[in-house]
Amino acid sequence: MPMMTADQYEASLRALNLEVYMFGKRVTNVVDDPIIRPSMNAVAKTYELAHDPAYADLMTARSHLSGKRINRFTHIHQSTDDLVKKSKMGRLLGRKTGCCFQRCVGMDALNALSIITYNIDQKHETHYNERFKRYLATVQEKDLVCDGAMTDPKGDRSLPPHRQPDPDHYLRIVEKREDGIVVRGAKAHQTGAVNSHEVIVMPTIAMGEADRDYAVSFALPSDARGIIYILGRQSCDTRKLEGGAMDQGNMLFGGHEALVVFDDVFVPWDRVFMCGEYEFAGSLVEMFAAYHRQSYACKVGVGDVLIGAAQLAAEYNGAARASHVKDKLIEMNHLNETLYCGCLACATEGKKKLSGTYAVNTLLANIHKQNVTRFPYEIARLAQDIAGGLMVTLPSQKDLDGDATGKWVQKYFKAQPGIPTADRMRILRLIENLTLGTAAVGYLTESMHGAGSPQAQRIMIGRKINMAEKKTAAMRLCGIDVKSE
Amino acid sequence: MPMMTADQYEASLRALNLEVYMFGKRVTNVVDDPIIRPSMNAVAKTYELAHDPAYADLMTARSHLSGKRINRFTHIHQSTDDLVKKSKMGRLLGRKTGCCFQRCVGMDALNALSIITYNIDQKHETHYNERFKRYLATVQEKDLVCDGAMTDPKGDRSLPPHRQPDPDHYLRIVEKREDGIVVRGAKAHQTGAVNSHEVIVMPTIAMGEADRDYAVSFALPSDARGIIYILGRQSCDTRKLEGGAMDQGNMLFGGHEALVVFDDVFVPWDRVFMCGEYEFAGSLVEMFAAYHRQSYACKVGVGDVLIGAAQLAAEYNGAARASHVKDKLIEMNHLNETLYCGCLACATEGKKKLSGTYAVNTLLANIHKQNVTRFPYEIARLAQDIAGGLMVTLPSQKDLDGDATGKWVQKYFKAQPGIPTADRMRILRLIENLTLGTAAVGYLTESMHGAGSPQAQRIMIGRKINMAEKKTAAMRLCGIDVKSE
Amino acid sequence: MPMMTADQYEASLRALNLEVYMFGKRVTNVVDDPIIRPSMNAVAKTYELAHDPAYADLMTARSHLSGKRINRFTHIHQSTDDLVKKSKMGRLLGRKTGCCFQRCVGMDALNALSIITYNIDQKHETHYNERFKRYLATVQEKDLVCDGAMTDPKGDRSLPPHRQPDPDHYLRIVEKREDGIVVRGAKAHQTGAVNSHEVIVMPTIAMGEADRDYAVSFALPSDARGIIYILGRQSCDTRKLEGGAMDQGNMLFGGHEALVVFDDVFVPWDRVFMCGEYEFAGSLVEMFAAYHRQSYACKVGVGDVLIGAAQLAAEYNGAARASHVKDKLIEMNHLNETLYCGCLACATEGKKKLSGTYAVNTLLANIHKQNVTRFPYEIARLAQDIAGGLMVTLPSQKDLDGDATGKWVQKYFKAQPGIPTADRMRILRLIENLTLGTAAVGYLTESMHGAGSPQAQRIMIGRKINMAEKKTAAMRLCGIDVKSE
Amino acid sequence: MPMMTADQYEASLRALNLEVYMFGKRVTNVVDDPIIRPSMNAVAKTYELAHDPAYADLMTARSHLSGKRINRFTHIHQSTDDLVKKSKMGRLLGRKTGCCFQRCVGMDALNALSIITYNIDQKHETHYNERFKRYLATVQEKDLVCDGAMTDPKGDRSLPPHRQPDPDHYLRIVEKREDGIVVRGAKAHQTGAVNSHEVIVMPTIAMGEADRDYAVSFALPSDARGIIYILGRQSCDTRKLEGGAMDQGNMLFGGHEALVVFDDVFVPWDRVFMCGEYEFAGSLVEMFAAYHRQSYACKVGVGDVLIGAAQLAAEYNGAARASHVKDKLIEMNHLNETLYCGCLACATEGKKKLSGTYAVNTLLANIHKQNVTRFPYEIARLAQDIAGGLMVTLPSQKDLDGDATGKWVQKYFKAQPGIPTADRMRILRLIENLTLGTAAVGYLTESMHGAGSPQAQRIMIGRKINMAEKKTAAMRLCGIDVKSE
Repeated sequence: MPMMTADQYEASLRALNLEVYMFGKRVTNVVDDPIIRPSMNAVAKTYELAHDPAYADLMTARSHLSGKRINRFTHIHQSTDDLVKKSKMGRLLGRKTGCCFQRCVGMDALNALSIITYNIDQKHETHYNERFKRYLATVQEKDLVCDGAMTDPKGDRSLPPHRQPDPDHYLRIVEKREDGIVVRGAKAHQTGAVNSHEVIVMPTIAMGEADRDYAVSFALPSDARGIIYILGRQSCDTRKLEGGAMDQGNMLFGGHEALVVFDDVFVPWDRVFMCGEYEFAGSLVEMFAAYHRQSYACKVGVGDVLIGAAQLAAEYNGAARASHVKDKLIEMNHLNETLYCGCLACATEGKKKLSGTYAVNTLLANIHKQNVTRFPYEIARLAQDIAGGLMVTLPSQKDLDGDATGKWVQKYFKAQPGIPTADRMRILRLIENLTLGTAAVGYLTESMHGAGSPQAQRIMIGRKINMAEKKTAAMRLCGIDVKSE
Repeated sequence: MPMMTADQYEASLRALNLEVYMFGKRVTNVVDDPIIRPSMNAVAKTYELAHDPAYADLMTARSHLSGKRINRFTHIHQSTDDLVKKSKMGRLLGRKTGCCFQRCVGMDALNALSIITYNIDQKHETHYNERFKRYLATVQEKDLVCDGAMTDPKGDRSLPPHRQPDPDHYLRIVEKREDGIVVRGAKAHQTGAVNSHEVIVMPTIAMGEADRDYAVSFALPSDARGIIYILGRQSCDTRKLEGGAMDQGNMLFGGHEALVVFDDVFVPWDRVFMCGEYEFAGSLVEMFAAYHRQSYACKVGVGDVLIGAAQLAAEYNGAARASHVKDKLIEMNHLNETLYCGCLACATEGKKKLSGTYAVNTLLANIHKQNVTRFPYEIARLAQDIAGGLMVTLPSQKDLDGDATGKWVQKYFKAQPGIPTADRMRILRLIENLTLGTAAVGYLTESMHGAGSPQAQRIMIGRKINMAEKKTAAMRLCGIDVKSE
Repeated sequence: MPMMTADQYEASLRALNLEVYMFGKRVTNVVDDPIIRPSMNAVAKTYELAHDPAYADLMTARSHLSGKRINRFTHIHQSTDDLVKKSKMGRLLGRKTGCCFQRCVGMDALNALSIITYNIDQKHETHYNERFKRYLATVQEKDLVCDGAMTDPKGDRSLPPHRQPDPDHYLRIVEKREDGIVVRGAKAHQTGAVNSHEVIVMPTIAMGEADRDYAVSFALPSDARGIIYILGRQSCDTRKLEGGAMDQGNMLFGGHEALVVFDDVFVPWDRVFMCGEYEFAGSLVEMFAAYHRQSYACKVGVGDVLIGAAQLAAEYNGAARASHVKDKLIEMNHLNETLYCGCLACATEGKKKLSGTYAVNTLLANIHKQNVTRFPYEIARLAQDIAGGLMVTLPSQKDLDGDATGKWVQKYFKAQPGIPTADRMRILRLIENLTLGTAAVGYLTESMHGAGSPQAQRIMIGRKINMAEKKTAAMRLCGIDVKSE
Repeated sequence: MPMMTADQYEASLRALNLEVYMFGKRVTNVVDDPIIRPSMNAVAKTYELAHDPAYADLMTARSHLSGKRINRFTHIHQSTDDLVKKSKMGRLLGRKTGCCFQRCVGMDALNALSIITYNIDQKHETHYNERFKRYLATVQEKDLVCDGAMTDPKGDRSLPPHRQPDPDHYLRIVEKREDGIVVRGAKAHQTGAVNSHEVIVMPTIAMGEADRDYAVSFALPSDARGIIYILGRQSCDTRKLEGGAMDQGNMLFGGHEALVVFDDVFVPWDRVFMCGEYEFAGSLVEMFAAYHRQSYACKVGVGDVLIGAAQLAAEYNGAARASHVKDKLIEMNHLNETLYCGCLACATEGKKKLSGTYAVNTLLANIHKQNVTRFPYEIARLAQDIAGGLMVTLPSQKDLDGDATGKWVQKYFKAQPGIPTADRMRILRLIENLTLGTAAVGYLTESMHGAGSPQAQRIMIGRKINMAEKKTAAMRLCGIDVKSE
């Protein structure tokens, strides 16, 4: 170390002792659970590719702390070039896994904290940044996966944290002790939570003075006492239990999300990065959100998979030369590459912050994410158009393999000469997976709501646009007196 | 009879002896199979509502053969008013079931055959129409469900039926006998096949003289010897096996589709409605397609359910008063009602055919269906926007009920005061069902491909538009000489 | 009479004495003014076609007052069939003129008043309806064009009429006399105002008791003393002054809109249809708006012209067989026919009101108009795509005719063999006219704002949707207790 | 020099002797012609801003030939930073002028030739690149405006150049002489042609050996003997002749396009850059097109103006606080910034060519331009929505100034307190100008067709996408054997 291999990563997870529940029952062996396993595989890919020379430039970076080569997911961006490579790494991994590989949320939390802890120290003469850098050095050295945990359950959305009927609906400090703090609450939608070594908690909203106890950020080992994980279920999740992989669509990789409960958990001071400085809650949220909206670069890579699958489906169906099919594939590519432009542009227009960290251009990161809430849905619609209705009326793999049914399935779902019926079924199942199944959760719904719902981006776009400049430009051209400029 | 009750319908299905396979195994009790049962329930609703005085006007009609009141699903349209009521019945049942209720395809087949058998007789001095009317009288009298079976596997799409490498890739006559014919082939994507008493087979494409053996239409009891059903699987199908209904989303109703194999099946002459008159294959397809494209009126009713669910989700989340949420709901309604306009207009612009049957306006039926391939996807996207990310990260019902997990689920997914957490979960599961789960198969992918894929409608729109009239109008206005009119 | 010819109509306009201004100067001969003349031609078409047997069924109706055959533009709808014919007449005239023919607004005002005057009488025991019917009889007998005038200038939009800084920003009663009332104010955007015999004034907004003086409706001869017309200018309006018609695009027809000022105008009692009954102002607006939103059926006819022109441009450019061009034309038709479905459906779903008049379905009329604010823009965009850039870089007709330039224009803008260069220029000028020129005002911007801006329709859609029914449907399916129904 | 001032630029144009026609007549004083003048002003802005220290970084560059600071429009890109600055310069000038400033087409021609002349020399051992560099040195030293002329009239689009019925429908060499060549033909849609010092001719299409005489590229002074300019007319062009600037909308700037005829024009050898090397015609077109598609960065700046105008219209109308208005403005910005991402990304992903010139990423430049064919239309539609119908029914400036009409216009078009009626009219006229008038030609139709029509970009997208990579990614995930990689 630094830079674990995929095998070392898996071994490191086995050494943890997480309290995980699914379908109402404790999961004792998380790593080998067939529903969770594909999501572990996806994270493992971030380790594997870091050792592949072909991808070293994208997947690794040189630590500004240690000078050592580290996995980029633990790196603090030192240039716009780093930001660009982050976007390209996201697309690469999306294409390699066809799903959410979960590790960017921790990278985004680390980068946001590297900036905000510095800013808090500037105002309050605290020492959060030093503390954070020591923590970061460990993360880089051990090559850890961090879950960046932001979203509180929120309860009544019209009320601030301190006025909630249930005060735990935002995570909060319930006790301050000499050696640390005790926290209570929960974080919802935690991507890849049970594949993580660490969980980094941040507030979810801008706060006022009365919310002081809610303005808290810290890191904990994922198996700290009192942390409980309840896995969310996904469309088609139990196909992974059926045995035989074809019906899963994506045989190898997946994602997961969990509710993470903090049942009065102790955090030692050296892992606390914000503690009551409520006026920085909003800027931490905004900074993390901007980084994380950029991270939706990964959906371009998942889009690559879906486009490739649609192209194959067209070929296997014998329709690839129809002009309308070719045009739909061009449209899918056009939309996908438009997304790519967004995640590149917010990176190249990034700027250095006081702490030395490079931040993305907030406006363009929001523009990018807003398009991510739209285009994957249209790409998915076009993929279903090209796939044909068979995608949802196809019998199961067991029917293909069945004594009484196999011959009929083989005979009647054969299409192009030379293409095995099973391959045609596989590619249709992959499209099903990406547009209706487990991967649709990541490619569609998470594209909508991850890193903030569409309206959150619209609010930021409204705020970050320089409307005065535009008004002045218009006034000049039509002869309205521009008083002050 | 006529007009079975829902209970009688269920009993009638139990009396059948279908050869059904699912997951590679024979299903011995089709009616009670937990995966199939909800689809039976949906068909049963078409019987139940026919006995409800509130819906009598939409759900029933007076037979032009017997003069008796019959279920509208067995009726031959005698006026544009009948056509309008068909559209309204479709919306009603879509709203009541939230899924595909499967029975329209048989109605559409009956109506198309009532016209085309007449037309064949006019040319060939055959007696198909009389034969068909006798068959129809039985269907009306016994109030039967008919599966209208059109789509062949098609094999190599660039080749006509008679040139396929596998000659069975289009269903065909393999033997003509004194007492009838023997047929071989398969029909794919057969909606509600195993809930049907009858299967009505039609060709799938316009044909030439060399395809004569493929130009065949007939009806058979669904349990005729040699008919084999292999069920297609759907997204989230096995949730119905889990016990506990919440995670199904729609607890009551569903759809199904099957591959129907005809393994050298005998058809007596009195059930044969086309036998070699290849030049009518195209018009039968076109007529059935026009009727069936109108039938996508049902998606307006399913849209009603999804809009209602989104409204409830907004209320349960505490977001119903946000202006962007209200605007999205208006947009969903706008799109849904635009669809409604289409299925009404193709009905009111319908015309009487020589046989006396009223046909829909083909152009407008295609316009309607084309919009159905688009708007439900956007409605679904907006529903996911309103629902929030919790829709795909929600733990299972077993977690809600679990000893260790229930309290956390109850506590942290509580939102609006007075709304039980379980109700919030139910409505999110319903939205999941309609946008990713079993019902998404019907609301989205079937909306895309059922009754013909989008390109099929575009071809018809191109054909049915009166472009000469438009060109003349333009020429007149700009002073180009219009030679002939 | 009834039923003037086009010539009689023109003569009748010459007999009027309107006070009209344009470009700051009095227009003394309105009928022959080259800028106004094409708009007169468009109205004249509504007279001409009423005498054409081919269109008699659409263009005329039998008066429920006199039993005589009258121009449908003066008719009170007696059935849904009348409403359907109104929509079809709109499409017909849009296709014949390629612009706004201006006469529907009066028809819509008459129909709305036929309902609301009846309702006022029911509550207030007034006699407005009788008075209105006498007025209507004259309109029908003399076959008059009425301008239906609703839109006030509105001043500060956040304030009701009685609180405006300038009290005249909504039209109001400034004096009540024994023989009538005196009114002051203005109506903006008055379509076809100077081609009208009559102006029918209605309030523009729902009102409260304090707005009583603003709750006024009446009719006046268009040349009543004190009425002043100031014409609005349109994109490319002065091309009509250039001589030589090619550059106009549409050589024959056009529209116009005017500000109509009421400078203390006297109205005798027998022409007053509402006078202070403020609580009916809102329903009059809503009823007129619903009728007038249906009237945007005409844009389907204008769409026909634009589609025909685009088809011709493709042919003249030699691009008509390219698959993308064919597909774009299909899309244009698809959108145009979707609009047609809307204006038909709101008519067939119409209902009889207490007064006996048939009203359109308000929800669907709003759905229709909402689509009209979108689809013509996309049709226009596609037309520009097909036309090619030459549409906006084409030299003038004078260049085509010029000694030094003609040969070059002829030589280098020649495309398809057999197609005169002049014809290619004509069709491109027509597309320019419809997408950027005088007709774009009607086809695009008026489609956006006429009969209420898009947000007005969204508000009505929100109001008219039965959300309770949809919520109940959703609750039933997912097992939420439905308390009351 | 280098770097003329705006005044020097104007003087330099006066020194030219162009043969220009408009409305069939010779224009003797081009610079002062009221219709052409605003387009000269727009080009002059490229000179003016180059002397403004605030914009020096964007507007100027250091010549790689002379080392002197030059206007960026004459610069050969030496880095991706240069490419990024080109995009930002485009946005800046679009915002400053609200129209097409015409000078990018020459910059793009110079850069494309810098690459392709080098490539030709590599194959053919010619000396075009040296010749080109000498020419370039002059352009930089004298700070000239070059018209980059590509689009031939094309005649019958189904035929290659050498098979056209009229052989001049593609520009060609008609004579080769010892001292040079003689060319004949025409170039259509030439933006800013009569404001240029030079015209640089390139072929318009990939060519075969038989088209050898058409494979020609050269530069000429714009007033060379035999070059004839016929100006295209624009929507609302003659408003500039009316006197009084308000109705023009944009009082200051405009664009123009012209047909440029080459009536047997002599070109000396030192200005010939391709002469028969047909196999490079396609790559010159593709390279120029990629650069020029990037240049549509300018439309982002024009979008800024339109957004600013819409914001002002909302404020002047008193509607700026309505949530739907705010949301529409956010949407306009969202679309505009999405375009910005495209023109940045194709620049940052640029690559160095053999000649040393940096080229944009061709795929992303095409993605960018494709969005430019869509989003400005939607931004314009939303601007019209916000502006209100008054934009097209507003009386003329002469009505505002007229004795009889002025008081009514002042009174009834007054809206917000403190905002002069004239200012409200000005901003509405500006929106009219940008969505229907002279500037709509540039912002809409030129966005559609300039630098290639939408289908041209789709063809390039189809070619440049790496579909094999996507197919492999999909196959791996669903278990299909990937034979070769």
